[in-house]
Amino acid sequence: MSDLFNPDGIAVVGASATPGKIGYEAMQNVIEFDGPVYPVNPSASGSVFDREFVSAVTEIDGDVDLALCCVPAPVVPDVIEECGEADIGGAVIFAGGFGEAGPEGQELQDRLVDAATEGDVALLGPNTSGFLVPEEQLYATFATDIDTIPSGNVAVVAQSGGLAYAIAFQAENEGVGVSAMVGLGNRANVGFEEAIEYFDTDPKTDSIILHVEGTDDGRGLLETCQRVETPVVAYNVGEQDVGDFAESHTGALTGEYELYEAGFAQYGVPTVRSSTELLDAGTALASSPRPDGPNVGVVTAQAGPGIAITDRLKAAGATLPSLTEETQEIVEEILPGITFSANPVDTGRPMPEFGEVVDAVARDENVDIVLVYELYEGGLGYPTDDLEGLVDDVDKPIVFASGGPREIITEELAELEAIGIPTFTAPERAADAVSALVQYAKRNAEPDAVVAGEEVSADD
Amino acid sequence: MSDLFNPDGIAVVGASATPGKIGYEAMQNVIEFDGPVYPVNPSASGSVFDREFVSAVTEIDGDVDLALCCVPAPVVPDVIEECGEADIGGAVIFAGGFGEAGPEGQELQDRLVDAATEGDVALLGPNTSGFLVPEEQLYATFATDIDTIPSGNVAVVAQSGGLAYAIAFQAENEGVGVSAMVGLGNRANVGFEEAIEYFDTDPKTDSIILHVEGTDDGRGLLETCQRVETPVVAYNVGEQDVGDFAESHTGALTGEYELYEAGFAQYGVPTVRSSTELLDAGTALASSPRPDGPNVGVVTAQAGPGIAITDRLKAAGATLPSLTEETQEIVEEILPGITFSANPVDTGRPMPEFGEVVDAVARDENVDIVLVYELYEGGLGYPTDDLEGLVDDVDKPIVFASGGPREIITEELAELEAIGIPTFTAPERAADAVSALVQYAKRNAEPDAVVAGEEVSADD
Repeated sequence: MSDLFNPDGIAVVGASATPGKIGYEAMQNVIEFDGPVYPVNPSASGSVFDREFVSAVTEIDGDVDLALCCVPAPVVPDVIEECGEADIGGAVIFAGGFGEAGPEGQELQDRLVDAATEGDVALLGPNTSGFLVPEEQLYATFATDIDTIPSGNVAVVAQSGGLAYAIAFQAENEGVGVSAMVGLGNRANVGFEEAIEYFDTDPKTDSIILHVEGTDDGRGLLETCQRVETPVVAYNVGEQDVGDFAESHTGALTGEYELYEAGFAQYGVPTVRSSTELLDAGTALASSPRPDGPNVGVVTAQAGPGIAITDRLKAAGATLPSLTEETQEIVEEILPGITFSANPVDTGRPMPEFGEVVDAVARDENVDIVLVYELYEGGLGYPTDDLEGLVDDVDKPIVFASGGPREIITEELAELEAIGIPTFTAPERAADAVSALVQYAKRNAEPDAVVAGEEVSADD
Repeated sequence: MSDLFNPDGIAVVGASATPGKIGYEAMQNVIEFDGPVYPVNPSASGSVFDREFVSAVTEIDGDVDLALCCVPAPVVPDVIEECGEADIGGAVIFAGGFGEAGPEGQELQDRLVDAATEGDVALLGPNTSGFLVPEEQLYATFATDIDTIPSGNVAVVAQSGGLAYAIAFQAENEGVGVSAMVGLGNRANVGFEEAIEYFDTDPKTDSIILHVEGTDDGRGLLETCQRVETPVVAYNVGEQDVGDFAESHTGALTGEYELYEAGFAQYGVPTVRSSTELLDAGTALASSPRPDGPNVGVVTAQAGPGIAITDRLKAAGATLPSLTEETQEIVEEILPGITFSANPVDTGRPMPEFGEVVDAVARDENVDIVLVYELYEGGLGYPTDDLEGLVDDVDKPIVFASGGPREIITEELAELEAIGIPTFTAPERAADAVSALVQYAKRNAEPDAVVAGEEVSADD
């Protein structure tokens, strides 16, 4: 697997000097990689992007672990056979026309898998748009403009390459990064299990987010999620019958939505309902301490967003515990005549003491997770100084949501993120991210800490 | 009401020269207005922001329709009495401590309403952060940095001022504008009905979006929504019991969530489940022709996002009709061997013919609303030229979703918006916006076009 996702050198099979062709786009992306790149094409001569064409992967004079196959489907099994001969351990297959395209395609995919098994080649795809690792400037894809996607600590593992990019670009749009982005496609011999296990050992990855349309081996996927140390979140698509459209896609049958939802719950995996929620949940899990329980303390500077957040948290099964008398006394001492000192704590409007109130709630022994909402107020800013060190001190997730002019808050919220506090710019998005933390806590609770009504796997 | 929302001149009662005070922040905001502004304060002398202090509203020598009351609660009834004497027809009351604060507060609020009735003054608040009309640079609020919020054609009418700002800043963050943003607060004598009726007649407003926590007069609100010509969307908060926190807020009892949901359905109002969905639904309704039916044609360049969109649309009750044979033939002629030519139409990846495919689906007589997903591809861009004039031609909403680097797509999606196509950067957000259009179509259908199972008011 490390040949595939962490190669020393790369071959682009079917490389082309013609812009617009997949073999050209893949070359253009992959030359940003800091390692040797070889264009392979038996019918081309000269060079492309200053690299000399080679006639076959077996003719490469150098260290290559990964081949990007930009050739049509019928040729792919032979190329993989040659990869095996050339000791290339990983290959990305962009072409469609395999398992998703009926019996003939399946036959071709079987030949492909045989060649890969024979030659010990890990295959990403076929029918994928590839993968990328921004930290390594490794863009194993034909998609364009992907070098804008920042490096981060969330690994995106999607059944659909298209959805993988939809998520990665949302991350870019929000200034969030990914440690890797992978579109699995047909999963000929690299599926969810292999990818999850690989990214579990990846030092750059602190959470793994999954897009699942359906798989032949649900149990294997679930057991892998439970076995790995890194938190996993899943976006399970297919609640409704979308008919043969899904089947025509990655050759997978949807329609087992409820089974997967129940399985993820049992095996400790929070589930979400959109690509945005998936990214947000992964970001919150990757950048926070793991929560010890489902009890959320809410601090808000404005009642309306606080009520919307509370409503949504409760609908998702979160508990808003009473604060200890000690905390309530501290809060009332900081802000005599405070608008609402129960949980949620409502300070009425932003104020210099706001950070002290958050600090008091975060230190409350009844609280496992803190959610803060405060509209930006010029001249006051965010309580970044007051909150510095707090996350480490209390070892609990603190999530911060706000609204304000983009130009200003982008910069100021980044300072909160730098001290370990994930941030969001819509109240309900923060509530959804915290709901995923709540699910994580409930679904991974020690047996004696299990909340009534929650099912936990016997071998937890 | 036009004294309140469309004044010629403004008095700031309790104006202050001390930064940080509400009377200073309100002055700072309101001097951007293109009209006379008078700071009123009996105990101040000299000037603030180059305007001379006046001792009382009755002493102003000039045309004033609107008073911003930055004084403490106990003084407010007397100020409103003076406003009546001075023929000032609108007032914003920022202070809390009225109906939301128990019996004594209610008594004060009753005195306030009596004074307003006597003097014929329309009151926004008390317990509000005010309103703004970006087009007029009218910022009747003490909140900061609000002059960044762009002008647009969606009116935000929120029970909570905090949530109004949360929505308005989300709009700013996304480059979307608002025609007005209003936080109703305690609704002493200006409530949902008055605000909705006013913005229905406002030429800048093409849709009205509501945040509702609860109101004494649900029926009046619903009948107003049905009576007005402008489309209304509602975000109804309070599915869960959030206890006395909500009551302490705007003096309203939540807990009638299901009743409101059913009422909005019956009276033709789409409902949504978050502030983001509310803004998106309002934007889609404001910038599209009204849909004639709930039948959605989906065109996607990537299967994964297409499946996620279809799944979500179906869950929300949308219908994906079969395309006519004629349309299918056109699509297959444009793209021989197309990946999937039913509905959704999946072109497999972006391509120069993508716009022609969208055009064909939009012209299909079975389709009432079109939803398009296409990841951005450099060198190809979006099919803006192909789609120009299409919305007017077919008189149907066309909604476009995409993913790509922020720097690039912000500009390119704006070109699509300029030709009447609302755009979104997450597949599920586009699906949610289209779901609101579907709800609108179903809930406002002519009786003979009613879809089975939908309830419609007898006087529709």
